[in-house]
Amino acid sequence: MNRYRAIFCCLFLAGQLHSQPPSFTVIPLGVKGGLDESNLSSYLVARTGTTHYIALDAGTLYSGIRKAIERGALPGPGSMVLRQYITAYFISHPHLDHVAGLILNSPDDSTKDIYGLPFCLDVLQDKYFSWKSWANFGDEGEKPQLKKYHYVPMVPGNEMAIEKTPLSVTAYPLSHGAPYQSTAFLVKSGEACLLYLGDTGADSLEHSDKLHLLWQAAAPLVRAGKLKAIFIEVSFPSEQSDKSLFGHLTPHWLMEEMKDLERLAGPGSLKGLPVVITHMKPGSDHGDQEATIRQELTANNPLQLQLVFPEQGRRLEF
Amino acid sequence: MNRYRAIFCCLFLAGQLHSQPPSFTVIPLGVKGGLDESNLSSYLVARTGTTHYIALDAGTLYSGIRKAIERGALPGPGSMVLRQYITAYFISHPHLDHVAGLILNSPDDSTKDIYGLPFCLDVLQDKYFSWKSWANFGDEGEKPQLKKYHYVPMVPGNEMAIEKTPLSVTAYPLSHGAPYQSTAFLVKSGEACLLYLGDTGADSLEHSDKLHLLWQAAAPLVRAGKLKAIFIEVSFPSEQSDKSLFGHLTPHWLMEEMKDLERLAGPGSLKGLPVVITHMKPGSDHGDQEATIRQELTANNPLQLQLVFPEQGRRLEF
Repeated sequence: MNRYRAIFCCLFLAGQLHSQPPSFTVIPLGVKGGLDESNLSSYLVARTGTTHYIALDAGTLYSGIRKAIERGALPGPGSMVLRQYITAYFISHPHLDHVAGLILNSPDDSTKDIYGLPFCLDVLQDKYFSWKSWANFGDEGEKPQLKKYHYVPMVPGNEMAIEKTPLSVTAYPLSHGAPYQSTAFLVKSGEACLLYLGDTGADSLEHSDKLHLLWQAAAPLVRAGKLKAIFIEVSFPSEQSDKSLFGHLTPHWLMEEMKDLERLAGPGSLKGLPVVITHMKPGSDHGDQEATIRQELTANNPLQLQLVFPEQGRRLEF
Repeated sequence: MNRYRAIFCCLFLAGQLHSQPPSFTVIPLGVKGGLDESNLSSYLVARTGTTHYIALDAGTLYSGIRKAIERGALPGPGSMVLRQYITAYFISHPHLDHVAGLILNSPDDSTKDIYGLPFCLDVLQDKYFSWKSWANFGDEGEKPQLKKYHYVPMVPGNEMAIEKTPLSVTAYPLSHGAPYQSTAFLVKSGEACLLYLGDTGADSLEHSDKLHLLWQAAAPLVRAGKLKAIFIEVSFPSEQSDKSLFGHLTPHWLMEEMKDLERLAGPGSLKGLPVVITHMKPGSDHGDQEATIRQELTANNPLQLQLVFPEQGRRLEF
């Protein structure tokens, strides 16, 4: 009987482990770090079981929604997803590959909020929703203001409850090719957290402590098992020289940063943590750069991170 | 023998008609007027038989090149097409759906020229290649200037020979939701001409004479049989109210403008002229808006234009 009980216990625990309900549903609308206009950084995030998504960056919307519908990850029609499923936008930084989908789809969008650090919202108002490059769909900047979008400036480290969703979000500044900035968003759903980083360089190359400060905020969540996933960029293979990184990470520099997080969270604490690799830049004359990045990451993963390579329109759960 | 000679002559003439070599090869890299980030206005144009293309607008490049390679209209790899086949860009106006592909692909592009009227080049420098929204790959504007692109301001009505190609181009100003401007480009290859219009409203709604002036310039070319095709936008179905056109055309307003051109060029002069319909906006909640536009145009074509509905990546010859 003891033997059967032991087997039963093992099966039960394994079942628990596998059946632990996910906290977050993520639909990647775009996963690449450049060039391909149909597949640029944007991730829809909702509490699992709800359809009140927030969009973390908005490089591609329309093409990503279409792909997600094809893959059964979202219902159609696309205009309904755009208008009703996306509750708010969180923009990490205003480079075009993170905002093009938002600008291009604004004529068909519904009224909603755009969250970001002030440096980012300023550029949206000044460079994109400016009447010279596009109509001003915002409620700030050049007049007339069409007021479809309400800008919500965030304060670093201040948690904000997001209206119409069960989520709250905290922004942390990042360095992206100093003096240029970017943002990490910590999304909370109850006790569970998901950390999304916009483009960022490694602290030591950026002469910055922004990632270290972020890891200090994240470490207690890792220790408590509350951090369900980290979305972080790896733009180039490790062969890319440090002076040609333009504020981005390589597999080498990602692992260095993950080691810093582990030092703060405790030995072995990152084992099995889902780390979603975003923003890989398609190569041009250098063969399949994305395959190289993937191979380098899996070949050198001393912390035993659970590496996740997202695909456009394919649902993820954490 | 006379009968045989007559038959021979007929066959010979028919052969001549059909075998008349085309003057222009056009590869549409993007054909839609909004929303779909993977398929926005851009047309590669070359003298048939050469690979020295110019890009008329650059809303989508990467996705369009990929599609053209799939369809056999261009050889691979895509980076070679981007760098070597595209000789120069001609931007009609700086709305994001006409320039996103150029900005997003700039890191992988080769050194080349960007042509446009000064109002347009000013916005490219101020809003896009500005270091806030993107790196400054231009040779004007915010420093440092990476100088990959050289801006070439055009003077309305002045024909410019385009280096490294057998083409010359003349710019004509258009009104696109006054006071906003746009541009038409008349491309010449020897005696043959192709006319491409960026976004434009009808003269009577824009309180403008810009299209009338353009038709005055085009009419002699039509009469002489030198104008091989007109690329012109039809963004909305005719049911769209005049006050909601935002500087665009409908099937109704396109036909009104074509009648003005015919008045200048002579009765019946447009019969059989290829008119390529660009920039149809995909509908959202209004069913298939593109199908409606197509149906309205074909159902009401009193001038017997040869209506052409371009597809992304499918080669056209004129």
